[in-house]
Amino acid sequence: MLHPDRYFDANPVRREIARRLYSQVSALPLVCPHGHVDPRMLAENPRFPDPASLIVVPDHYIFRMLYSQGVPLEKLGIPRVDGGPVEADPRVIWQHFADHFHLFRGTPTGCWLKHEFEDVFGVDRTLDSRNAMEIYDQIEACLAKPEFRPRTLFERFRIEVLCTTDAATDTLESHRQLRESGWPGVVLPTFRPDACVQILSPTWAHELALLAELTGKDTHTFDGFLAALEQRRAFFREMGARATDHGVYSMYTGDLSSAERADIFNRALQGEVTEDDAVRFTGHMLMEFARMSVEDGLVMQVHPGSLRNHNPRIFEAFGADKGCDIPVATEYTRNLQPLLNKFGNHPDFRMVIFTLDESTYSRELAPLAGHYPALRLGPAWWFFDSIEGMTRYRYLTTETAGIHNTAGFNDDTRAFPSIPARHDLSRRVDANFLADLVSRHIVEEEEAGEMIEAMAYRLVRETYRMEDIALPARASR
Amino acid sequence: MLHPDRYFDANPVRREIARRLYSQVSALPLVCPHGHVDPRMLAENPRFPDPASLIVVPDHYIFRMLYSQGVPLEKLGIPRVDGGPVEADPRVIWQHFADHFHLFRGTPTGCWLKHEFEDVFGVDRTLDSRNAMEIYDQIEACLAKPEFRPRTLFERFRIEVLCTTDAATDTLESHRQLRESGWPGVVLPTFRPDACVQILSPTWAHELALLAELTGKDTHTFDGFLAALEQRRAFFREMGARATDHGVYSMYTGDLSSAERADIFNRALQGEVTEDDAVRFTGHMLMEFARMSVEDGLVMQVHPGSLRNHNPRIFEAFGADKGCDIPVATEYTRNLQPLLNKFGNHPDFRMVIFTLDESTYSRELAPLAGHYPALRLGPAWWFFDSIEGMTRYRYLTTETAGIHNTAGFNDDTRAFPSIPARHDLSRRVDANFLADLVSRHIVEEEEAGEMIEAMAYRLVRETYRMEDIALPARASR
Amino acid sequence: MLHPDRYFDANPVRREIARRLYSQVSALPLVCPHGHVDPRMLAENPRFPDPASLIVVPDHYIFRMLYSQGVPLEKLGIPRVDGGPVEADPRVIWQHFADHFHLFRGTPTGCWLKHEFEDVFGVDRTLDSRNAMEIYDQIEACLAKPEFRPRTLFERFRIEVLCTTDAATDTLESHRQLRESGWPGVVLPTFRPDACVQILSPTWAHELALLAELTGKDTHTFDGFLAALEQRRAFFREMGARATDHGVYSMYTGDLSSAERADIFNRALQGEVTEDDAVRFTGHMLMEFARMSVEDGLVMQVHPGSLRNHNPRIFEAFGADKGCDIPVATEYTRNLQPLLNKFGNHPDFRMVIFTLDESTYSRELAPLAGHYPALRLGPAWWFFDSIEGMTRYRYLTTETAGIHNTAGFNDDTRAFPSIPARHDLSRRVDANFLADLVSRHIVEEEEAGEMIEAMAYRLVRETYRMEDIALPARASR
Repeated sequence: MLHPDRYFDANPVRREIARRLYSQVSALPLVCPHGHVDPRMLAENPRFPDPASLIVVPDHYIFRMLYSQGVPLEKLGIPRVDGGPVEADPRVIWQHFADHFHLFRGTPTGCWLKHEFEDVFGVDRTLDSRNAMEIYDQIEACLAKPEFRPRTLFERFRIEVLCTTDAATDTLESHRQLRESGWPGVVLPTFRPDACVQILSPTWAHELALLAELTGKDTHTFDGFLAALEQRRAFFREMGARATDHGVYSMYTGDLSSAERADIFNRALQGEVTEDDAVRFTGHMLMEFARMSVEDGLVMQVHPGSLRNHNPRIFEAFGADKGCDIPVATEYTRNLQPLLNKFGNHPDFRMVIFTLDESTYSRELAPLAGHYPALRLGPAWWFFDSIEGMTRYRYLTTETAGIHNTAGFNDDTRAFPSIPARHDLSRRVDANFLADLVSRHIVEEEEAGEMIEAMAYRLVRETYRMEDIALPARASR
Repeated sequence: MLHPDRYFDANPVRREIARRLYSQVSALPLVCPHGHVDPRMLAENPRFPDPASLIVVPDHYIFRMLYSQGVPLEKLGIPRVDGGPVEADPRVIWQHFADHFHLFRGTPTGCWLKHEFEDVFGVDRTLDSRNAMEIYDQIEACLAKPEFRPRTLFERFRIEVLCTTDAATDTLESHRQLRESGWPGVVLPTFRPDACVQILSPTWAHELALLAELTGKDTHTFDGFLAALEQRRAFFREMGARATDHGVYSMYTGDLSSAERADIFNRALQGEVTEDDAVRFTGHMLMEFARMSVEDGLVMQVHPGSLRNHNPRIFEAFGADKGCDIPVATEYTRNLQPLLNKFGNHPDFRMVIFTLDESTYSRELAPLAGHYPALRLGPAWWFFDSIEGMTRYRYLTTETAGIHNTAGFNDDTRAFPSIPARHDLSRRVDANFLADLVSRHIVEEEEAGEMIEAMAYRLVRETYRMEDIALPARASR
Repeated sequence: MLHPDRYFDANPVRREIARRLYSQVSALPLVCPHGHVDPRMLAENPRFPDPASLIVVPDHYIFRMLYSQGVPLEKLGIPRVDGGPVEADPRVIWQHFADHFHLFRGTPTGCWLKHEFEDVFGVDRTLDSRNAMEIYDQIEACLAKPEFRPRTLFERFRIEVLCTTDAATDTLESHRQLRESGWPGVVLPTFRPDACVQILSPTWAHELALLAELTGKDTHTFDGFLAALEQRRAFFREMGARATDHGVYSMYTGDLSSAERADIFNRALQGEVTEDDAVRFTGHMLMEFARMSVEDGLVMQVHPGSLRNHNPRIFEAFGADKGCDIPVATEYTRNLQPLLNKFGNHPDFRMVIFTLDESTYSRELAPLAGHYPALRLGPAWWFFDSIEGMTRYRYLTTETAGIHNTAGFNDDTRAFPSIPARHDLSRRVDANFLADLVSRHIVEEEEAGEMIEAMAYRLVRETYRMEDIALPARASR
């Protein structure tokens, strides 16, 4: 089912080159600097539940597509916020999924699932209404075996390092457990302080309280709040973190005066802030986080431009991350100017920017990354983590920024068994892109060989400052 | 002149697949859910006038291009608003057209015309200055024959259903005539209430009066106005309408309070409204029309983002639709949120959105359509109803929304004899797109076979709720 | 090293056609209507300094990329504004360049440099750390020879006309010298009045004084200021200018009332204007310059949308044009309406618009150029003067505007020895684009043959009104 030349252009000259380039990197270990795998899974190493709970229920890429075609989320077993009844039989859920599997034709989810089914579970047919239960049984049989436990899969997938995404107030208990377990897999936390910064959120006060409890700081003053965040970063660094992660709606950055930030902070404590206050506060906090990154060396990742929970009916019934986050146009040139002017020339600062607005690749992001030493472009993200999305990313950024101002691939996934499929797809797309350059005599094949190793492996390690993580023998030539 | 492999990629593997996929759908009937053919033409079935009046004078795609290269519209016989003199000799007009035919190289108009010339009129040479009169004579000879009357062409073109676009105040007299004529061709009206909603327009008062006359409602109150529109929709439904059509400048949607709408409505009656009032009123009316669509099942089509009559000199001399409508950047994510939050989850609601801003395909429209059950993406529209435009549309939307959240093709044309050319081009482009997916092993050819039938035929019938229109024998497998 | 099929698609059918089309135009003379070569170079015809001063130090495309990867500009010999110390040894600079030459893989700079090295200097290897000094020596040996003087290269490059870019207050002394020298090379000035229009700039008062001195007009009144500009245009025309050039941040155009412009102008004289005043004043001046173009026939070039000197640290240390100009989203439809309404239908007006916002090609610029007779689209500009940039330009504009509403190629360069490489790349990309149309049977090869000659040579002469410049024998068929 998985064709060895998949995703390569049909032209035989280009395809031959793509094959050779791909074969150079197909067996390299996977570096996963940004993702949403639950560290408990690797700390506790339980057997995975049934196929539906593993593959369908947690994956909003999957259930949003079924929802768009009229399948209620309840029928797919998505838990309700109010605990109300939803489908509980994984076989029924799986059958709905199979009945609609044709919706994923031509989508990256379709590609990943095919890969995952065949490569991880040995399924050699396309899922459909008729074979749904057989394939369910086949996957279920796998999951029952010890070699399908998370840690064994981690090793089988050749994951060199896996970074999780963790709230600033997370105790990193699972990470501690992992370290102490003696298991050699490298799993590192990432510092994500979004909840501490969202002053409009009803849970902000609770976050401050948690922060205070964890750090002993008085988080009811702005300075105490900053000090608490700095202490948490130090703890995350101790626990191996290489990066921070910041999800924001607007890319606005800019310093507030000390009076302004005290004013907004105090009003926020009293629940009296406007949306504009929130944008300005977030813009100021990005400046503070950049300063902290200069000081402590954590790589600063920012991904703006998603209007979260666009559909309140779904948010109220099922909560966040249910496929209802919709991108908006995003401005980088003016918005990043304050931050880059202050820190963008600093040799110790490293910032990785993602976008959901592809019109900014060539207009704003590649020119910025092709100038400021601190800036790297994150890979094609979310809806663009796809064959065509990655291809556009390379064609739209390489001419202006080259490949060395890009951050390498990350899978950004919560779907653990899809990790190899995602990296494989990315390596194939990059090989196919480079094969085009070689076939048109823009670069030599030898040069492309160095480029594909950078794109598949070296740039991500360099960007995320992972030089200290031992290179496995096979990659260290 | 018409190459059997036209518009297919030069790669032989892909081309072979494209040919096979295309051949599966090339003979399927044409479903035309959205267009601007005058129903009188089919009701009265006259012979077409001369070639220039048939092909050049009504087609702004053609004369805008000549105008851009310095040919005055008067020389092309475009009638002046003031009835002033314009070129009246169709042979002189045709000669101007022929003299500039090279301007259409690489444009969809060039492709459609070649197809139309050869396939409809048997012309086997490219039009140029020298052969202009010969080709004129050849087309003129055709037009004189009974088999070139509109109804015969309709049948020859294998049109299964043709929807026209009709003002809310249209009596649909031609549609009634058509129904009563006994001719079996299916021609249906579409409800377009734009003129009734444009409160800034000098003709608005007249529209209200017409509405009142037709419905017996007091259209000088907002409630009476709504009731009149509802009654007209009911009449259009009786006459077979499947859809409404809404052309707006901004995509803004949002409810006005009952006080606000009464206030704006009353000031509009007195001619005292601002542009901002108009945007808010239109935004409210889109909410009302969505509600009505939920109630009566008419599919709601919205196409925003054209700045109409950009060139006032042309508008004053020649009126609207003269090639001077220029697109503007359009925002969907925030603007559609009020409407989609209220109706987007409703199983009875169906909305089809078009765009002239291609940057929104991947950023906003595909993510929205890949989530909200009510939303379908209309096909590549207007300037993008073209080989490259459709190709970009598929590459930019399929990975996120799949093909099943798209609405199938429509030709949107007032150029009746170009209808087969437009559908043929669309089917070829889709076949070529799918052939790329097959050749890169993203989908299997068997899957692509199902996809091309959906894209060419099934999706448009399903989207526009035409299940009741009998499937011809050859398509009903 | 330079493959004869470089930049052509790998498909053999398409490649064959591309070769044939390219061979039709590869030897045509180079028309350079827009660039930044210093006319003194051709007036004085000195030997070029060393390789680093010729190739690295003046080229911000090169040093911005090295800067983005952490190489300080001081190390590359970029002169400091304060005259402070920077690297002075050209061999050291060249070695830094060579050490980072891999950064240019897949960039147009990489393509141009390869071409320039081989074709101009006979270097047949890719520059790297090891061969840096050998290649330095080889280029240095060339530069020492008389046949590498600017005028000889100009002739060898087959430059038919080269337009420079000159401040409105430039005396055009070098142009006068050139004329009087008896050398037959055609080098013409271009009128660029930006500094006279930038009322916020600290140097504006100085510009007014210069203008007054050169023209004898009282530039402290708006009318005197206009009269002075008109007189300078007349002088530039006498000196052979064909065009004006306007770099603006916003594309806003619009008339100020005579009271408003006097008010802003007077406040500007007192240094009391806001950013909004400046935008409105620039918008008004664009209207004035358009009027002057109607009157004097100079082609009006406008390139908006670059946020200049984004990085103040670099600007303060090294000045302008140091690779820190970053594009912003640009609006054309509404902003150009006032100007095009007033002048866009005028047969004597010609305007060439450039963009750094590719999302406007298909949405705004092609529809505008496909309608207004005065408007031509400038070629893919700056970051988009590249293989992929030009390719996107053609695919995004041709279907709506055709090729005859485009302005032909210009190299826009200050890197004199890269001129042939840039024209060659453009001709190859256009040939490859047309070959795609031919291979898909969208245009006939014979039609494409006419199109490539227009794109490579005829359109630029026609757009910039160079019909009076003698066609060389070989091109005048």
